[in-house]
Amino acid sequence: MDLKMSHHIEEQSWKQLTSHLAEWVADSHKHTTDGHVASYIPELANAPSDVLGICIMDAGGLTVVAGDSDFRFTLQSISKVFTLIMALMDRGEAIVFSKVGMEPTGDDFNSMLKLELVEPGIPFNPLINAGAIAISSLIAGKDSEEQVARILQFFREVAHNPTLEINQAVFQSESDTAHRNRSLAYFLKDNGVLDSEVDDVLRTYFSHCSIEVNCTDLARMALVLAHNGVDPIRNQRLIPRRFVQIAKTFMFTCGMYNASGEFAMNVGIPAKSGVSGSILSMVPGQYGIGVVSPPLNRKGNSTAGVHLLGKLSQEFDWSLF
Amino acid sequence: MDLKMSHHIEEQSWKQLTSHLAEWVADSHKHTTDGHVASYIPELANAPSDVLGICIMDAGGLTVVAGDSDFRFTLQSISKVFTLIMALMDRGEAIVFSKVGMEPTGDDFNSMLKLELVEPGIPFNPLINAGAIAISSLIAGKDSEEQVARILQFFREVAHNPTLEINQAVFQSESDTAHRNRSLAYFLKDNGVLDSEVDDVLRTYFSHCSIEVNCTDLARMALVLAHNGVDPIRNQRLIPRRFVQIAKTFMFTCGMYNASGEFAMNVGIPAKSGVSGSILSMVPGQYGIGVVSPPLNRKGNSTAGVHLLGKLSQEFDWSLF
Amino acid sequence: MDLKMSHHIEEQSWKQLTSHLAEWVADSHKHTTDGHVASYIPELANAPSDVLGICIMDAGGLTVVAGDSDFRFTLQSISKVFTLIMALMDRGEAIVFSKVGMEPTGDDFNSMLKLELVEPGIPFNPLINAGAIAISSLIAGKDSEEQVARILQFFREVAHNPTLEINQAVFQSESDTAHRNRSLAYFLKDNGVLDSEVDDVLRTYFSHCSIEVNCTDLARMALVLAHNGVDPIRNQRLIPRRFVQIAKTFMFTCGMYNASGEFAMNVGIPAKSGVSGSILSMVPGQYGIGVVSPPLNRKGNSTAGVHLLGKLSQEFDWSLF
Amino acid sequence: MDLKMSHHIEEQSWKQLTSHLAEWVADSHKHTTDGHVASYIPELANAPSDVLGICIMDAGGLTVVAGDSDFRFTLQSISKVFTLIMALMDRGEAIVFSKVGMEPTGDDFNSMLKLELVEPGIPFNPLINAGAIAISSLIAGKDSEEQVARILQFFREVAHNPTLEINQAVFQSESDTAHRNRSLAYFLKDNGVLDSEVDDVLRTYFSHCSIEVNCTDLARMALVLAHNGVDPIRNQRLIPRRFVQIAKTFMFTCGMYNASGEFAMNVGIPAKSGVSGSILSMVPGQYGIGVVSPPLNRKGNSTAGVHLLGKLSQEFDWSLF
Repeated sequence: MDLKMSHHIEEQSWKQLTSHLAEWVADSHKHTTDGHVASYIPELANAPSDVLGICIMDAGGLTVVAGDSDFRFTLQSISKVFTLIMALMDRGEAIVFSKVGMEPTGDDFNSMLKLELVEPGIPFNPLINAGAIAISSLIAGKDSEEQVARILQFFREVAHNPTLEINQAVFQSESDTAHRNRSLAYFLKDNGVLDSEVDDVLRTYFSHCSIEVNCTDLARMALVLAHNGVDPIRNQRLIPRRFVQIAKTFMFTCGMYNASGEFAMNVGIPAKSGVSGSILSMVPGQYGIGVVSPPLNRKGNSTAGVHLLGKLSQEFDWSLF
Repeated sequence: MDLKMSHHIEEQSWKQLTSHLAEWVADSHKHTTDGHVASYIPELANAPSDVLGICIMDAGGLTVVAGDSDFRFTLQSISKVFTLIMALMDRGEAIVFSKVGMEPTGDDFNSMLKLELVEPGIPFNPLINAGAIAISSLIAGKDSEEQVARILQFFREVAHNPTLEINQAVFQSESDTAHRNRSLAYFLKDNGVLDSEVDDVLRTYFSHCSIEVNCTDLARMALVLAHNGVDPIRNQRLIPRRFVQIAKTFMFTCGMYNASGEFAMNVGIPAKSGVSGSILSMVPGQYGIGVVSPPLNRKGNSTAGVHLLGKLSQEFDWSLF
Repeated sequence: MDLKMSHHIEEQSWKQLTSHLAEWVADSHKHTTDGHVASYIPELANAPSDVLGICIMDAGGLTVVAGDSDFRFTLQSISKVFTLIMALMDRGEAIVFSKVGMEPTGDDFNSMLKLELVEPGIPFNPLINAGAIAISSLIAGKDSEEQVARILQFFREVAHNPTLEINQAVFQSESDTAHRNRSLAYFLKDNGVLDSEVDDVLRTYFSHCSIEVNCTDLARMALVLAHNGVDPIRNQRLIPRRFVQIAKTFMFTCGMYNASGEFAMNVGIPAKSGVSGSILSMVPGQYGIGVVSPPLNRKGNSTAGVHLLGKLSQEFDWSLF
Repeated sequence: MDLKMSHHIEEQSWKQLTSHLAEWVADSHKHTTDGHVASYIPELANAPSDVLGICIMDAGGLTVVAGDSDFRFTLQSISKVFTLIMALMDRGEAIVFSKVGMEPTGDDFNSMLKLELVEPGIPFNPLINAGAIAISSLIAGKDSEEQVARILQFFREVAHNPTLEINQAVFQSESDTAHRNRSLAYFLKDNGVLDSEVDDVLRTYFSHCSIEVNCTDLARMALVLAHNGVDPIRNQRLIPRRFVQIAKTFMFTCGMYNASGEFAMNVGIPAKSGVSGSILSMVPGQYGIGVVSPPLNRKGNSTAGVHLLGKLSQEFDWSLF
């Protein structure tokens, strides 16, 4: 098709999106009762269970929001996508993939089996917890403080929002309670995967998990990935294309915990979820998307969020295949 | 871009492809020494180790071939993609996904761990051996003979080649030696996944693994998937689009055994490999691709075949992300 | 203590045993409602659930019986103790322990994990199903028929009962339904543990599992083990002492499935249970014991049988430690 | 036999023991070259590799020593037997066995598989590292310092040696390097098995592992177990018989890591080994035995120590079965 027709279709889509989004959000909102707010981190357990918000942003900076789009939450596992990108920028592919593998796994996100059984000591991929902890240790910086400062700076740049901060209450709550992550980190240390000290790595890890955003921040961050590393609004390259390619591939094959395959089949776009009930997703070449709804299904993904993205994908035929 | 420009670029690509393919094949041919012909099925062990052939076919029926493109081989695991499609056409999504899961797994293709550990008794996805055996039992037909007849008919239709036949020597060799598959099948039977008898299911399974093709057949079959179920040359729909979407998603997330993630990251297109050293791949919306080179790397994929597809993907920027 | 005193105590014990056994059996009988008759083999599911019988036999041939001591049942896993002994007599320690390990395992009796995870392909010990199947293949005999004939002859000799026969209905039922065992056997075959064909090995295996006995037979077989391989009644050596030592060690460390440790701690004598609800046990140097009560606890051992043995061990301080 | 004859035999045995022990030690000494001194704790790696010492003590206090019997070493895993006994004395069976299981396991001593796979979160038994860490947390005491003081007091009492102390260099070395144990402890904490803090539990755990003894201390401690909790030399009960029974059962079924089954079959007496190359063993009702030789075989037990105990067991027919 020619460019004009393509633009025309995009305009039509956008129009349809803006007119119907609130209604689709209302429809998906019913699913907020079908799940449970994450409780293993006490601070997360305080999140309201009847929230559903979304923001979709296009390359020109147009945004459409619906539902509780002002709701603020922490990035949690979504941050892993961007620390992976930082580690790649700081160290290069060779070093990063000597510490984590490239293979998706249908196992639980915090299982230790994968570390002991199949490829002893090396996390299967950078998006499972063990892999993300290994990645945190690769971020440049003379100590955890400097790593966290660099991470915060990078995330602010990608989100084009200099006010992003770490939610200290969540950070503290994670540090105090995440025995499983501490267990994983010592296991990695024992296997020679971590060069720095466990306490330092975890401080960095819990810090980037605790960065607070809203749906608009998510959408802007996603938009940069959707446009292969360029912020299309400022027309500024923030990330080398290759590293975005890597990040999007991992999001597609293992971004939604052990429901990644199901999501790929039924929604069909790259996405990464966090236990705060958030999902960062995108339509490659077009939109950045941020969604949040705290109640999680039994696979750890936002129930209403997944439903809403499924609806949108179906309406606009977003599936990559 | 407009249609004319798009066509122009496609023509340029095709021209470049036809002029350079032989040279790239020659370059990848060196990698045939870097691997071993599958030996666990005696008949497969007889395959020559210095073969590399490829066929690429476009929507208009143009084909470019290079290397040992006449070499004949059996489909092996590549057949799993099309029996999955048949099972979906015969039974629908609900029944199929009550017997197999949707999640990729980085484990060995014939591991039993996934059956016992994480989701007892249900294979993780339809492309690992256990899943494909479960799928074989879902093909319509009053007995194994009728199932095999229907499969052969369907494969001939998709390949547009009425001469496809089962290689009886390979079939016999597989039947005689595949103790691991027999073990998997009885495990599935014990878990209530198989309705029919193990011997019947395995006869069907070994039969479709033993269908003999060449690269051109593979390319034609791939072309139908690349065009969402329509054979673009005959302009005839052979498979509902949704089932092709499912098949391509599984190919992308788990089509290359436990190197699927690596292939997705480095080549970036849907593909399925077989232990005969064959790979069926495609550029969605454009080409169907068939490659064969028997020596396998330690993950079970054709060493030279993977190298050649990587080279092509890089040259023409085929990666989906 | 001197011999006279020792004999006096033994006489006192025997007297107490004969006067109280019926009462203890009545007390343990309540536990027959606390468990379920094995149902995975249809023929076993027909066993009555309110049966409890016991026979205790001393070196002089004195026997005391109580409860349903005439009840007939098949040996099931108890037979593994005696096929292990035969394999040792036929092949020697070196060959036997090249095919099975020596280590107890707390896993489920029919788990495949142990085969794949820790010591690939080699069953952990001769009393788990996989190990016992490997042992069956080591019994001397030109074919399964001859193996079974030799087994039956040996079991008749040890039980001093020439009328022992295979229960054909149980044998048939096991052969028809034991998909898990068939899966294990093909897994072993794939790993080179079995020299003969799977069907032949399983015919032998199911045959010795289906030998029918009563509590008196069990007690006599146990008596031979209690006296280190000599039938003390006939004063005749039937088994070399070393092989009885091996058998008793395995019974102590892994004779009661994944409750072996608990049984060792709470009852403290060598024992082997079968899914027919039978238990062969002994007081080393003194008694042979046979117990049967079909309802099994969730670890696969006879609920009332374990209770009764626990009571007796406590009363007479039978624990080895 | 009567008492006189029995005493006579014991005297004969003792005479033979005293005359031949040095020669048997010399023979086993060759095996010190067949293994490696534990290196994962730096301080242990300093141990000399050509040491072999033994002490055997009888109920009357007679001792026979041979080889490097003055060599001093830390208890390491041998301490687990006595902290188990303390936990049983402090809390009772019910509480102890709600935190650890009773089943032997042939897996590696520090594997996490058993925690995640079969009985999630509960260590399989009190002698694997995870189980022993759980046991450490059950020792009475208002803090780790008090726990350690009580442990030291108890160990001194059982060894009848008020000079026993913690080797601070080994303690420090263990604390600094045992990432795997820290990983296990956090895993247990995450599963609710530990009530106290991980750092406190590990301080207690590393402390009792670092108590320094010689072979004579080991023999005296073993003698108390051999005599069911009574120190026969002082004729004083130190431990209730039931708890010694429990301890000896675990030593028999899982005291020698994943060679426990092999040791039970070939040596046949209760024993517990430590990575310092030490083994505490006993002939129930008779002797306490302490052996040390630092080089370990691949299962983690002292190569020469196991050989020497095997020789003694064979000479004197010590096997329980």
